[in-house]
Amino acid sequence: MKKYELLPVTGPDSPAGWQLTEAEQPQPGPGQVLVRVRAVSLNYRDLGVAKSPNRQKAVVPCSDGAGEVAAVGAGVTRVQPGDRVAGIFFQTWLDGPLAIEVHAHALGGAIDGMLAEYVVLSEQGLVKLPEFLTYEEGACLPCAGVTAWNSLFEQGQLKPGQTVVLQGTGGVSILSLQLAKAAGARVIITSSSDDKLARARELGADETINYRTTPDWEKEVQRLTHGLGADHVVEVGGAGTLEKSFGATRASGHIAFVGVLTGVSAPIATGPLLTKSLRLTGIYVGSRAMFERYLQALTLHQLRPVIDRVFDFAEAPAAFAHLQSGAHFGKVVVRL
Amino acid sequence: MKKYELLPVTGPDSPAGWQLTEAEQPQPGPGQVLVRVRAVSLNYRDLGVAKSPNRQKAVVPCSDGAGEVAAVGAGVTRVQPGDRVAGIFFQTWLDGPLAIEVHAHALGGAIDGMLAEYVVLSEQGLVKLPEFLTYEEGACLPCAGVTAWNSLFEQGQLKPGQTVVLQGTGGVSILSLQLAKAAGARVIITSSSDDKLARARELGADETINYRTTPDWEKEVQRLTHGLGADHVVEVGGAGTLEKSFGATRASGHIAFVGVLTGVSAPIATGPLLTKSLRLTGIYVGSRAMFERYLQALTLHQLRPVIDRVFDFAEAPAAFAHLQSGAHFGKVVVRL
Amino acid sequence: MKKYELLPVTGPDSPAGWQLTEAEQPQPGPGQVLVRVRAVSLNYRDLGVAKSPNRQKAVVPCSDGAGEVAAVGAGVTRVQPGDRVAGIFFQTWLDGPLAIEVHAHALGGAIDGMLAEYVVLSEQGLVKLPEFLTYEEGACLPCAGVTAWNSLFEQGQLKPGQTVVLQGTGGVSILSLQLAKAAGARVIITSSSDDKLARARELGADETINYRTTPDWEKEVQRLTHGLGADHVVEVGGAGTLEKSFGATRASGHIAFVGVLTGVSAPIATGPLLTKSLRLTGIYVGSRAMFERYLQALTLHQLRPVIDRVFDFAEAPAAFAHLQSGAHFGKVVVRL
Amino acid sequence: MKKYELLPVTGPDSPAGWQLTEAEQPQPGPGQVLVRVRAVSLNYRDLGVAKSPNRQKAVVPCSDGAGEVAAVGAGVTRVQPGDRVAGIFFQTWLDGPLAIEVHAHALGGAIDGMLAEYVVLSEQGLVKLPEFLTYEEGACLPCAGVTAWNSLFEQGQLKPGQTVVLQGTGGVSILSLQLAKAAGARVIITSSSDDKLARARELGADETINYRTTPDWEKEVQRLTHGLGADHVVEVGGAGTLEKSFGATRASGHIAFVGVLTGVSAPIATGPLLTKSLRLTGIYVGSRAMFERYLQALTLHQLRPVIDRVFDFAEAPAAFAHLQSGAHFGKVVVRL
Repeated sequence: MKKYELLPVTGPDSPAGWQLTEAEQPQPGPGQVLVRVRAVSLNYRDLGVAKSPNRQKAVVPCSDGAGEVAAVGAGVTRVQPGDRVAGIFFQTWLDGPLAIEVHAHALGGAIDGMLAEYVVLSEQGLVKLPEFLTYEEGACLPCAGVTAWNSLFEQGQLKPGQTVVLQGTGGVSILSLQLAKAAGARVIITSSSDDKLARARELGADETINYRTTPDWEKEVQRLTHGLGADHVVEVGGAGTLEKSFGATRASGHIAFVGVLTGVSAPIATGPLLTKSLRLTGIYVGSRAMFERYLQALTLHQLRPVIDRVFDFAEAPAAFAHLQSGAHFGKVVVRL
Repeated sequence: MKKYELLPVTGPDSPAGWQLTEAEQPQPGPGQVLVRVRAVSLNYRDLGVAKSPNRQKAVVPCSDGAGEVAAVGAGVTRVQPGDRVAGIFFQTWLDGPLAIEVHAHALGGAIDGMLAEYVVLSEQGLVKLPEFLTYEEGACLPCAGVTAWNSLFEQGQLKPGQTVVLQGTGGVSILSLQLAKAAGARVIITSSSDDKLARARELGADETINYRTTPDWEKEVQRLTHGLGADHVVEVGGAGTLEKSFGATRASGHIAFVGVLTGVSAPIATGPLLTKSLRLTGIYVGSRAMFERYLQALTLHQLRPVIDRVFDFAEAPAAFAHLQSGAHFGKVVVRL
Repeated sequence: MKKYELLPVTGPDSPAGWQLTEAEQPQPGPGQVLVRVRAVSLNYRDLGVAKSPNRQKAVVPCSDGAGEVAAVGAGVTRVQPGDRVAGIFFQTWLDGPLAIEVHAHALGGAIDGMLAEYVVLSEQGLVKLPEFLTYEEGACLPCAGVTAWNSLFEQGQLKPGQTVVLQGTGGVSILSLQLAKAAGARVIITSSSDDKLARARELGADETINYRTTPDWEKEVQRLTHGLGADHVVEVGGAGTLEKSFGATRASGHIAFVGVLTGVSAPIATGPLLTKSLRLTGIYVGSRAMFERYLQALTLHQLRPVIDRVFDFAEAPAAFAHLQSGAHFGKVVVRL
Repeated sequence: MKKYELLPVTGPDSPAGWQLTEAEQPQPGPGQVLVRVRAVSLNYRDLGVAKSPNRQKAVVPCSDGAGEVAAVGAGVTRVQPGDRVAGIFFQTWLDGPLAIEVHAHALGGAIDGMLAEYVVLSEQGLVKLPEFLTYEEGACLPCAGVTAWNSLFEQGQLKPGQTVVLQGTGGVSILSLQLAKAAGARVIITSSSDDKLARARELGADETINYRTTPDWEKEVQRLTHGLGADHVVEVGGAGTLEKSFGATRASGHIAFVGVLTGVSAPIATGPLLTKSLRLTGIYVGSRAMFERYLQALTLHQLRPVIDRVFDFAEAPAAFAHLQSGAHFGKVVVRL
């Protein structure tokens, strides 16, 4: 079988990027499942893993994949051959709050990921895909989709009628847009592209702000909310946009801190955090139980992730380059 | 001005029911507001108040009314003459959980209610009506609407994709139906009338059960939820239906205990409460803050309460009789 | 090795009660752990299992046991031989809310329990015992202790200064008493025995009520709380005492519905549930994560469960009889 | 009567600091209460108000005071002359989450505060003092005490057995120390003074860290928690210490963001917020309902605030200077 690998970094001349290699097909042990991967979606985090100067062993990239169960090991009861499944980001985060131990079981980072024709996962590390979703669509959910769900409904406790601010039109933001609208919220979304904002409106966005022409977008959010501010911000920008998010949020409002797009460190004026009694929750994907609640919502609403473009397996490096370019709207997918 | 009154009960021959009387127009004191009432909606609770053998003084009936501010007393800042407003059920429950003291300030029970041409309320005891709602529609919200909102979103923490069971097609149930659909939930509703069930479907109900032809409706709920049970039940039936609601609810599910339609006492088998780890929350309307969050949702979705029938002020006793008959679907309103 | 068994019920002449039998020592498979059981504690639930007319296969009784790891199967990483451990009640409830599937993995009921010299459990179905606890003490925790913890701190969200009502002096109540005092709460406890009430005072109870001499104990609770009622009741009585618990609880208060001592069905007047906006949560033990949080609290406070009496393994039937008699104060233990 | 005032800032030569002036005794209007102030406590926030270059009108300083009711206006029912009371920080934040409107009613900032012989407050803006507290003690609670309570028990949902990190030995930290110990938590406290750390140990602190000799105190917290990190940090340092608090907190842990001692802006590396899924809650004192729950806990435990030093009314400027010096341990009080 074929798989991609990120090789260990041994020095300045280490091979960079994704290497397509040939490997023996793995076999499922007791409690394990062999999955024939059919689609993988990309996340910014996968670019970060590829660039990391600290990798000490080869790793198969990508956290997000969907496929069918090809074989099961001894004692497996949760799935059977032929089942359509997706992997969960942290293979051991099943329910409850995040525990530090699950870091050691992150697909496509701490352990081998999904960009391979076959992978072996624990039977606990899977969810079943609803029938209405294709493999390409199912592959969009494990990281970005569960992050959106966790931000809005687990930590966010979003209520109908509330206002949500989304930043940009990448995977998490567009998946959040679809969910927030399904849940009866009002959505304000930002982008540097009027074309993308128009597409966001088609998907249900109530208000749009071009942050290039309106750099003080937090003031526009205030205006659009009669001076109150939004109930929720899904902060994918990270440290560099957090101050503006403070400004955009209402008293006792919630900021789901999801992203690092603008970098992990910045000078931050923390006053409004205190004076507005904001609630800031760090979101690192989510548990299997959250994923399953998310699938229940997607199924009821027959909500399909917005796929920007599908690449062939052999073109995976081009898919990563496309994600890196920021030209996408929604998710970038590799089909196997 | 004219108002209705329930007279004190002094013996078996006390006058029963609602007496239309003439009274002097009241004046607002400091911090108070004079409201010209334009519409009142009826609730089962108002029938209970009328039948109570313990009334020791005359009381103006009905908790739910809407009108316009006719005059304000000294120091009033929250409203001004001409504002369109609705009263809140407990005049002193502004925010936070229910405190026992608010019982003494329940409109149309402990204190004079809204079935009068003019009423004086504290400026704290009002919410402003959104422009899109008529007075008749606004009058439907204070008791039944806030109860529905509190059940689903404050105590219930309803998430999209979850399943809600509603009992019958009275005020709370139909207002819950509209809200639950706006919030992306799946709704199963019961009634003894196929006609009413058909109307509920038009309002968005996903599944309907005629509890006359399917008395074991909790088993049908189980079937419709693949054996899991519903995430939420809004229990308007009370003690007499609670056992069935236990049967209809999933493990770790929620029952909002709202009603007393089947009586306040019954033999109840409590086993499933424990073995399914159910959460049962008593709902006694809600606070002004809940009301305001509810109005925010109604406004975003331009959701109008379903009004069964509007009676003239002089016909109020007939309106009560209509409610008592159970023939209604949605809310019964008196227009002033 | 030796173990007790409850034999299948095949007819009116089926053997009743606990049979001491000889069996082969089991071996741990992949992911499993062999535990040399050192102590077992008894719960009312174990009496219920023994009396059940529906048992279709033999089962080893008792959910609660502690011992040392004798051997581990392939791939086990959470424990190693020599570790001191206790089993968890539901072998598959690790974190998050109760799911119905865990019913199939309840020790000493759905599956074989702990009243045996050796048992094999999944490595996931264990917690490590803190060093300061003996095996006898550790064996008291899995059912009654986790139930107390879940009631007060997971569902109850008990805050310091709040008042808790505890019913009787059995395992859950005494373990709750110790925890509630460690958490800075005020405790009111009931019993039919002044001697037991005196012992409860020694353990920190602030107020005691003899429910034999004060049958309207809920009124005494009201008196002791200046007419407000208690913030929490741990309802071990069940259906038969629930009405009194309604009376003893303050507006917006919490009742942890834990028990069935007075039976599972009774006529219940539900009015106060609604008018006081009570919150009633069914408690069916708890998850491994709750158990671990509980152990953290016990360790900080060096809190030891109160053991009423320790019986030898051969005397287990006498231990059950002692529990049945209701003469105990705290937990009844069998030592192996 | 006498009162202190901070005069408006009209230019670089505006009078700085607190001016003792003579004024006419105010009279309570309808719904208002005249309080004879007996003690006032100081907070860092009061220093910030004094230094603010934006003050446009004179204001009586200080949010925190206690005294006795001298007279009541028309319609007042919550208190009567002779009652011992303390003011609440935000005169209109009674219950529920913080709303932005309450900013306009902050004592000693937006409106006149407590450093006066007599003040007039709304009857809603008071709590009754428990009998066991002196006026000096009661005056310590409204800002720092309610902040500590809100941090640990409202937003924090602290459970017994959890670990809390407190920074320094000022008012909020020492009041948090007392509360956390009463609630069964483990406390790690930092200071630059070994003497103060010794005093903190006497008050119950489990572990102490001198951050002068151990600048990487977050690593010491990790060591003291077996590499897990603390469950809660009460962040009084603000932006400048937040990174270290991220390091000191466990996965899914909570940081109550309370203070600004190190400044309101700093470069902050936000990575751990995300990877540990931290929860950061801005705390701006709290509501009257929180204050009352806090008083309930203080009363049960007869917990008295630690008073560093009491100054006479005429010495108030010296009291502020003492607070500014940072030499204090606990609260600085002015007696009237």
